[in-house]
Amino acid sequence: MSAPRIDLNSDVGESFGRWELGDDERVLQVVTSANVACGFHAGDASTLRQCCETATRHGVVVGAQVGYRDLAGFGRRFVDYDPVELADDVTYQIGALEALARVAGTRVAYVKPHGALYNATVHHDAQARAVVAAVRAYDPSLPVLGLPGSRLLAAAEEAGLRTVREAFADRAYTSEGTLVPRTEPWSVLSDPDEVAARVVRLVTEGTLVAADGSVVRVEADSVCVHGDSPGAVAMAAAVRDALAAQGVELGAFA
Amino acid sequence: MSAPRIDLNSDVGESFGRWELGDDERVLQVVTSANVACGFHAGDASTLRQCCETATRHGVVVGAQVGYRDLAGFGRRFVDYDPVELADDVTYQIGALEALARVAGTRVAYVKPHGALYNATVHHDAQARAVVAAVRAYDPSLPVLGLPGSRLLAAAEEAGLRTVREAFADRAYTSEGTLVPRTEPWSVLSDPDEVAARVVRLVTEGTLVAADGSVVRVEADSVCVHGDSPGAVAMAAAVRDALAAQGVELGAFA
Amino acid sequence: MSAPRIDLNSDVGESFGRWELGDDERVLQVVTSANVACGFHAGDASTLRQCCETATRHGVVVGAQVGYRDLAGFGRRFVDYDPVELADDVTYQIGALEALARVAGTRVAYVKPHGALYNATVHHDAQARAVVAAVRAYDPSLPVLGLPGSRLLAAAEEAGLRTVREAFADRAYTSEGTLVPRTEPWSVLSDPDEVAARVVRLVTEGTLVAADGSVVRVEADSVCVHGDSPGAVAMAAAVRDALAAQGVELGAFA
Amino acid sequence: MSAPRIDLNSDVGESFGRWELGDDERVLQVVTSANVACGFHAGDASTLRQCCETATRHGVVVGAQVGYRDLAGFGRRFVDYDPVELADDVTYQIGALEALARVAGTRVAYVKPHGALYNATVHHDAQARAVVAAVRAYDPSLPVLGLPGSRLLAAAEEAGLRTVREAFADRAYTSEGTLVPRTEPWSVLSDPDEVAARVVRLVTEGTLVAADGSVVRVEADSVCVHGDSPGAVAMAAAVRDALAAQGVELGAFA
Repeated sequence: MSAPRIDLNSDVGESFGRWELGDDERVLQVVTSANVACGFHAGDASTLRQCCETATRHGVVVGAQVGYRDLAGFGRRFVDYDPVELADDVTYQIGALEALARVAGTRVAYVKPHGALYNATVHHDAQARAVVAAVRAYDPSLPVLGLPGSRLLAAAEEAGLRTVREAFADRAYTSEGTLVPRTEPWSVLSDPDEVAARVVRLVTEGTLVAADGSVVRVEADSVCVHGDSPGAVAMAAAVRDALAAQGVELGAFA
Repeated sequence: MSAPRIDLNSDVGESFGRWELGDDERVLQVVTSANVACGFHAGDASTLRQCCETATRHGVVVGAQVGYRDLAGFGRRFVDYDPVELADDVTYQIGALEALARVAGTRVAYVKPHGALYNATVHHDAQARAVVAAVRAYDPSLPVLGLPGSRLLAAAEEAGLRTVREAFADRAYTSEGTLVPRTEPWSVLSDPDEVAARVVRLVTEGTLVAADGSVVRVEADSVCVHGDSPGAVAMAAAVRDALAAQGVELGAFA
Repeated sequence: MSAPRIDLNSDVGESFGRWELGDDERVLQVVTSANVACGFHAGDASTLRQCCETATRHGVVVGAQVGYRDLAGFGRRFVDYDPVELADDVTYQIGALEALARVAGTRVAYVKPHGALYNATVHHDAQARAVVAAVRAYDPSLPVLGLPGSRLLAAAEEAGLRTVREAFADRAYTSEGTLVPRTEPWSVLSDPDEVAARVVRLVTEGTLVAADGSVVRVEADSVCVHGDSPGAVAMAAAVRDALAAQGVELGAFA
Repeated sequence: MSAPRIDLNSDVGESFGRWELGDDERVLQVVTSANVACGFHAGDASTLRQCCETATRHGVVVGAQVGYRDLAGFGRRFVDYDPVELADDVTYQIGALEALARVAGTRVAYVKPHGALYNATVHHDAQARAVVAAVRAYDPSLPVLGLPGSRLLAAAEEAGLRTVREAFADRAYTSEGTLVPRTEPWSVLSDPDEVAARVVRLVTEGTLVAADGSVVRVEADSVCVHGDSPGAVAMAAAVRDALAAQGVELGAFA
């Protein structure tokens, strides 16, 4: 029997001009896939190029983390886009990152929506289809990373795209296997050991303990860890170490 | 003896959101190469994609018209960029347009700086080299379009890139073969017949009558015509018709 | 008995950098109140200052037309703002315009939300309250212009602000006195004579003929006319002339 | 004989959306004047309002730190503005901050250019005059803070504005009393005690030891300290403490 295997992904490339955010250098030593911002919600061109170079150096796969055109809101506010304009903005962002990735010796290997676009495409059919349409028209071999059960992954599947199911290391789950909304005080977990143990269980058994104590089945191809604070990087490293200790193989899906 | 041959280029894709600029549909029926804006000085993603589709439909070659990140100034104000950041911004723009061009069934086939960046790279060595470095790192087969004698074309040549020399249909020239600055009242020509006759002479004889009446040698592979006003489109059409009447073959350089 | 009296308002100051929109000079010869953009959805600083100067010259009252921070979407896409951030963005915009108005010899005399913010604040309580909170904190003597029955005007009234009820010259109404959504083909009227006659009836009798033929009561202190196309300016002028012919006095509410 | 007196100023309000920069809370416990960003090079509206509230709480005077419209460059790249557009952009920024200051219970009490605009207006006459024209048209009672000997202060004086001469706590000076360019390795001082001692000497004796060891006369009404790193805040506090220990009175000029 082969060893269980999982991808670890994290958001990077989120600095902008004078403003630094996250410790990309350290995060890229932990994860196997890097969701690199594309300039619309975060990330200037030099940040993106440097981030792709660091990813290349550490053998980390680069994905395009596409977002709403909303720097001031960091892409975290829902914007009621016309779907055609959304698709074009997604294409623009993938291409921009692709060029910088190419210069850095790598390629865009997948697409993941950011922030409010990620949340919107769980249920918003038109926006989910717009993202999928952009990916498919640009390069139908690019996988789409998203939440299991989301409209995004459903639309991607219908369009013949490869889908990658994501779980969140530090988020509480409901008994239905969905995320506890961030508005709940217990929605985000902060103890590195607890988080690491959850991820190990998720990867080796395919289950998580929900907020109400019940055991739920969660299938994931990739686990999202965060890196925008010192504590987050430490937690990501704890997850990585715990997985390695259990003989789980870490590797990019793409 | 083969017929003389020339490329006609024009700036397109300069609308932005609610704001329309230029008549891309008509311009793209006249020119052979389209300098498509890339979103930093003008052009939203949907405009760029539609513009590339129209270019594809009319068999017009698409080039990336890269500019400073300055929407409010339309890229017409010199910005004292760090050269590395300029190179990265150029790469970002080329890639963004490339993706939309690809979706529209075409490719970015050359690069031309816009506005103040075009003017800066005539003399500003560091900015000229930055643009060239970006093109070369992204795709060394892409030609660079610019002013003969500019630092831009010199740097491109040194870097092994193909260079394309450009002349301006509606601009007065000095006796040294350089452009009369726009600050001079007689710097821009507006009579379609006169402009058309100048372009015919330029293409068939390689000469222009300078502002002081002297005859100067100007070598050009492409002639820039404008399309951002009804009169400009008419003038571009007059140039095209006059060239055709003299047996000049119109064709993209790329 | 005194003559009926009404205010005519229109959106102006919507050019941005190289991009021109609307004919502010002509519009400001027709209306009595000018909803001047404030730079977030449209309008660069020089456009706003010039627009305020023109308004001053024609004796037109200046209002701040505040919008979402979304140039690419022209403020026409709903953005799910945090209410506190929305209030601060509104304050920022009012102040920016106020300074330019002051330099131009006038003052901001009222506030009207633009586009998607206007539509949102009809029903969206938190955004309506945010706009009202900003106005009240900045200057509680500033009236708020909006749709009768909107959450915006209700919140403004609760906050002790003066409210100004607006009707639309060229929009079809339902039998409940609300606007027919723009998605309906008959939602926008285009015949200048018909529109002028409707406005005269509205002002002199307080009624409109709804899309289903029924007569509805609509109370308005100001009528919105548009000016972003040659036809729109002509229609606005027709409305003004028809009102004058019926002895209606035109005058700003502020 | 009255005690010597000086103002300490620092840049604040430079966070933007998700990106935090500087520790405004601590800086505003040290300085007497706060150069608050106005949104063009840094600072979203909520940051500015909160910053003004904190300044009010600590009795710190608020000034408008106006900059180029260049978020990606943090206003640190020279932009070759048309002077009229620059003046309008300055007015816009002052007004925007004024509104947020008002809501926070304070007022804009002076104007200081930021970054590349600060450096440009040392020598660039047209840009210096543009800034001055904006201040004068908006409120001729507002002082302008700048470098002694700069075109900015000269133009402000000619226009009848009050000028405030600034010295830099942590910068090396030439024997002519100008700043050693940042390109020189010894241009920035980092030892808190040395910096504090220099400031004390500057304030009590009106002299500084230049980089070549000579003693130069430097007259200053305000000393700029930085606050965008933990070390910078500590240095600012050291300057304040040293001045207090020498009986120097700290107080805003405005």
